[in-house]
Amino acid sequence: MDKTDTLRRLRNVEGHLRGIERMVDEDAYCIDVIRQISAAQAALSRLNSRVLHEHLHSCLITAVRGEDPGERGRVVKEIGEVYEMASKV
Amino acid sequence: MDKTDTLRRLRNVEGHLRGIERMVDEDAYCIDVIRQISAAQAALSRLNSRVLHEHLHSCLITAVRGEDPGERGRVVKEIGEVYEMASKV
Amino acid sequence: MDKTDTLRRLRNVEGHLRGIERMVDEDAYCIDVIRQISAAQAALSRLNSRVLHEHLHSCLITAVRGEDPGERGRVVKEIGEVYEMASKV
Amino acid sequence: MDKTDTLRRLRNVEGHLRGIERMVDEDAYCIDVIRQISAAQAALSRLNSRVLHEHLHSCLITAVRGEDPGERGRVVKEIGEVYEMASKV
Repeated sequence: MDKTDTLRRLRNVEGHLRGIERMVDEDAYCIDVIRQISAAQAALSRLNSRVLHEHLHSCLITAVRGEDPGERGRVVKEIGEVYEMASKV
Repeated sequence: MDKTDTLRRLRNVEGHLRGIERMVDEDAYCIDVIRQISAAQAALSRLNSRVLHEHLHSCLITAVRGEDPGERGRVVKEIGEVYEMASKV
Repeated sequence: MDKTDTLRRLRNVEGHLRGIERMVDEDAYCIDVIRQISAAQAALSRLNSRVLHEHLHSCLITAVRGEDPGERGRVVKEIGEVYEMASKV
Repeated sequence: MDKTDTLRRLRNVEGHLRGIERMVDEDAYCIDVIRQISAAQAALSRLNSRVLHEHLHSCLITAVRGEDPGERGRVVKEIGEVYEMASKV
């Protein structure tokens, strides 16, 4: 179900990009292109946030409550990495 | 030519998103999905930056050097707006 | 006047940081520290946006309307650079 | 020790802001002010990333491995929130 929702959202952004390609092809005003690209990026940020939410409530909890310290360390480290990607450290 | 380059880059991101859809469909690891979505966003940021570069060197210069103060004000205001979008003020 | 406003805003963020130092010193909860640091960053983003606004309506217009193509090119290039900094390209 | 490091970094950014105040007071070029403010923001992002790192390896692990599901849910939810703040969803 969440997978269906993620796929639907990805396809929406894909459709949005095709719309932007048409705009560029028809020589739309640069600033309007930038605005549309920014809107597509914002949709991808919201999607990332949902994927992370699911991950935290399933994989992370399972790994941290599990008995493998290596696995636990790995999963926790990844959260730090995606946070840095989001804040572009 | 720049239009061709912009279109090629947009199609690349579109292809990237289709790849992410396949990953999601095949139950890829959430963190890998987030990493790929972040890479697609970074490609869109670089594209925005190129579109703005062209805009600054053509439309902005023409409008600011032109004799219509309304047009000049509008074009300058838009630069402030895309800057705020980029910094998510 | 705008200078006074910029200085006042910078001093506010400075005071905010001193408050965060006190929080850290008194062993505040990590997430609360992150929230306050994010709020200070948002205040700096708003300030950057105001400084850019003034710059666009004064220096940029003067340089672009001026007769030195080197100066015009330099000022336009800088706008591209601060945009890239804001979008962390 | 980590607390000492966090405090030292916060004081550095505070000192950086005071330097920017002097620049503004001496009528520095707007673009240079924007560059310095962006550098201060980047230092705060790196600091946030370190504070989160510590939090993940201590509080988060303790809460998720603990037996209080409410506490576990709260700590996991906060990670989603700081991620959204960083990506400005």
